[in-house]
Amino acid sequence: MAGVATVIAAPPAGAATREFWVAAVPVTWNMVPNQFDAITGTRHDPAQTVLGTVVYRRFARGWHHALPNTPDSGNQNLIPGPLLRARVGDKLVVHFKNLDFARRDSHSMHFHGVRYRPSSDGAFVPGVSGGDGDVKPGRTWTYRLTAGRDAAGVWPYHDHSRAMHESIDGGMYGMLSILERTDPLPDREFVVVFASMGDFQTIDGRAFVGDTPVFRARVGQLIQWDVMAMGSEHHTFHVHGHRWLGPGGAPRDTQTVGPAESFRIRWREREPGTWLYHCHVEDHMEAGMIGTYNVSRR
Amino acid sequence: MAGVATVIAAPPAGAATREFWVAAVPVTWNMVPNQFDAITGTRHDPAQTVLGTVVYRRFARGWHHALPNTPDSGNQNLIPGPLLRARVGDKLVVHFKNLDFARRDSHSMHFHGVRYRPSSDGAFVPGVSGGDGDVKPGRTWTYRLTAGRDAAGVWPYHDHSRAMHESIDGGMYGMLSILERTDPLPDREFVVVFASMGDFQTIDGRAFVGDTPVFRARVGQLIQWDVMAMGSEHHTFHVHGHRWLGPGGAPRDTQTVGPAESFRIRWREREPGTWLYHCHVEDHMEAGMIGTYNVSRR
Amino acid sequence: MAGVATVIAAPPAGAATREFWVAAVPVTWNMVPNQFDAITGTRHDPAQTVLGTVVYRRFARGWHHALPNTPDSGNQNLIPGPLLRARVGDKLVVHFKNLDFARRDSHSMHFHGVRYRPSSDGAFVPGVSGGDGDVKPGRTWTYRLTAGRDAAGVWPYHDHSRAMHESIDGGMYGMLSILERTDPLPDREFVVVFASMGDFQTIDGRAFVGDTPVFRARVGQLIQWDVMAMGSEHHTFHVHGHRWLGPGGAPRDTQTVGPAESFRIRWREREPGTWLYHCHVEDHMEAGMIGTYNVSRR
Repeated sequence: MAGVATVIAAPPAGAATREFWVAAVPVTWNMVPNQFDAITGTRHDPAQTVLGTVVYRRFARGWHHALPNTPDSGNQNLIPGPLLRARVGDKLVVHFKNLDFARRDSHSMHFHGVRYRPSSDGAFVPGVSGGDGDVKPGRTWTYRLTAGRDAAGVWPYHDHSRAMHESIDGGMYGMLSILERTDPLPDREFVVVFASMGDFQTIDGRAFVGDTPVFRARVGQLIQWDVMAMGSEHHTFHVHGHRWLGPGGAPRDTQTVGPAESFRIRWREREPGTWLYHCHVEDHMEAGMIGTYNVSRR
Repeated sequence: MAGVATVIAAPPAGAATREFWVAAVPVTWNMVPNQFDAITGTRHDPAQTVLGTVVYRRFARGWHHALPNTPDSGNQNLIPGPLLRARVGDKLVVHFKNLDFARRDSHSMHFHGVRYRPSSDGAFVPGVSGGDGDVKPGRTWTYRLTAGRDAAGVWPYHDHSRAMHESIDGGMYGMLSILERTDPLPDREFVVVFASMGDFQTIDGRAFVGDTPVFRARVGQLIQWDVMAMGSEHHTFHVHGHRWLGPGGAPRDTQTVGPAESFRIRWREREPGTWLYHCHVEDHMEAGMIGTYNVSRR
Repeated sequence: MAGVATVIAAPPAGAATREFWVAAVPVTWNMVPNQFDAITGTRHDPAQTVLGTVVYRRFARGWHHALPNTPDSGNQNLIPGPLLRARVGDKLVVHFKNLDFARRDSHSMHFHGVRYRPSSDGAFVPGVSGGDGDVKPGRTWTYRLTAGRDAAGVWPYHDHSRAMHESIDGGMYGMLSILERTDPLPDREFVVVFASMGDFQTIDGRAFVGDTPVFRARVGQLIQWDVMAMGSEHHTFHVHGHRWLGPGGAPRDTQTVGPAESFRIRWREREPGTWLYHCHVEDHMEAGMIGTYNVSRR
């Protein structure tokens, strides 16, 4: 039962206002840049793996220049969108600019997990919502969010404009990562988004071992996995050789995540080796939803 | 681990016997009465949205006259079936009459969450079950149920006769809502059943914003959502601008619900605005599984 | 958050090393041996229900002779593979022999829930894994596992070789059942694996009431259900007339289980009768994922 955050009193000591600049940009994206499935040995032709799409991209203050979306990802940092980090009590101000001059669609940002007024909801509902859900090419919108006491965890954000379905299929999603005020920062934070894309089942927009992100850590480090799904399918997240505690405290090593669900896993690493992480839905593994996690000794 | 209700001793003080009269009745049902998807502007022709079906309908004691199925729903109150309310310790006596003189199928009621003897199970198993799972047109059956100490929550009931599959696809399902003896009644109780119906993905038998139930509340009210799924698909329930505590106490705003799963969410409302609630499976949203929740200021 | 088992100190008093002999063997398997769906009365022709496949089979020490895979199952004991029982703190040594001289595929065993070095992972990754993920016909591999403090529960094991997908579709999976050191043994332990197989939806490789396992218990017995799913679909496990406590302590009688997820349910039986247990996904019930559970009086 909810109700924990019924009263938002004065923000906690140290609470900050965090500003982010995020643009929707058209890009050419290759789901299988190595053109190769390292497990089966299958070759994949660029004609089947490259598509034009629109993604979220992080910019420096005032749109000065583009920045990497995600710090610990080995890929080109365009899918998922920027990892937006905050702490409970913070205010988040997200400046969004629609630079989609390719499809010329309206776009938006809709955030899970945080508090906001309807004008920062970002969903397109004719006769109800305003510009927040319908940011036209060349225009901007500022979303004002508060990380309440019930915001600790990881959460999706995504396009919720009229073009929502096509945008999400093309990679217009990202995550919020919100810590309690005194939570230690993890040493490594891995963002895993399960989503289908064309004929492939992707992790962070990439398919097959060697193309999906190769996550790296050392024994002794504090590891955090930020996991979510987008689209129309349920997945089961599994990491080889590791376990964590699920809801209610039962240990597990496989966890269902449906569209727009998300969860955070932490452990202190102590298992050196090269491990697989993957969706355990067999059809999804076969279509690319699998990668490697390399743990080196100290 | 279960076992909490190993001994049913004397019923708690104030426990009641609650009687319900529920009939299976043939009706003509329109999944999209406005013939319109308010978000995309798509028109829907009655030829595709109207079907003949059989539903559960609440009656007054002794079959005197029909009554609304669900108190807080804005729709015609035929799908889902009657919301059956009780408290832990109560006995429920459900008088069921099969008035399906259209398809002339046998029907039944099978209840989740409550205790009963096999003769109140309501499932059709040749050579094992009796009349409880095979109530022929014009006949009645009385189901005798007990809300045990592990019955608090919301639960499905549905047809479990030989025609189960077709009946569930046509809307023959409803919910039990069982409170602890001292739980306060909510000010508003919203019943949300996710189910596919023909080519549409419906909430309470209706598809698309403006056709699905418009739930209404005021700031300060105690809100309860009763959520379940029926049929063959998994869904993710999401409400914009709100969060609740999931199993184990982690806050969430999106929750998977598979066929015959169910959960109850409560919050004290404090977010004025017009909000979307929907299944977050993209294909399901697009096929109608979305509605609005209007919160007015006090 | 994990981290509970950060330090594996000396094994607890009484910890044992448990050895198992498991072979991959080709068999002819009939999904519907009665050729009959007892609920609908439909006949099923062996031409559609019999297939050649490869399964895990338990052997006595030193491959002396074959043994039943699962003690409390009423079926032919070939699908799922051997139920591997241990307690927290134990070491498990699993001797695997590939006797697949029919398809002549490589096979392997990959275990969930337990600790092991990469050489006991059992997954095929070219350039990374060794013989553990690629045991050729006629060869053996020994997997060395530790049931850590976070291993209590039930867990899948399955083929993770290059032939993984075909093997899992054919029934190459089984379960680990790990108790805390002082947990009482259940009186009855029922293994339920949901998996599609050809056109059927099976429980332990069998479809339809009368063909799926008939589980039997008496009032007063301590019952344990070991439930998991394999393949590409999500399921919802339901038992008529019974409830248990889900994660976080909320009572339930229906629970989603996705591919490679697993859970254990225990109750002290007190409900005499013939009950249905089934997957509550309607299409799956109709395709065979349903069985009976018979509880007799003391």
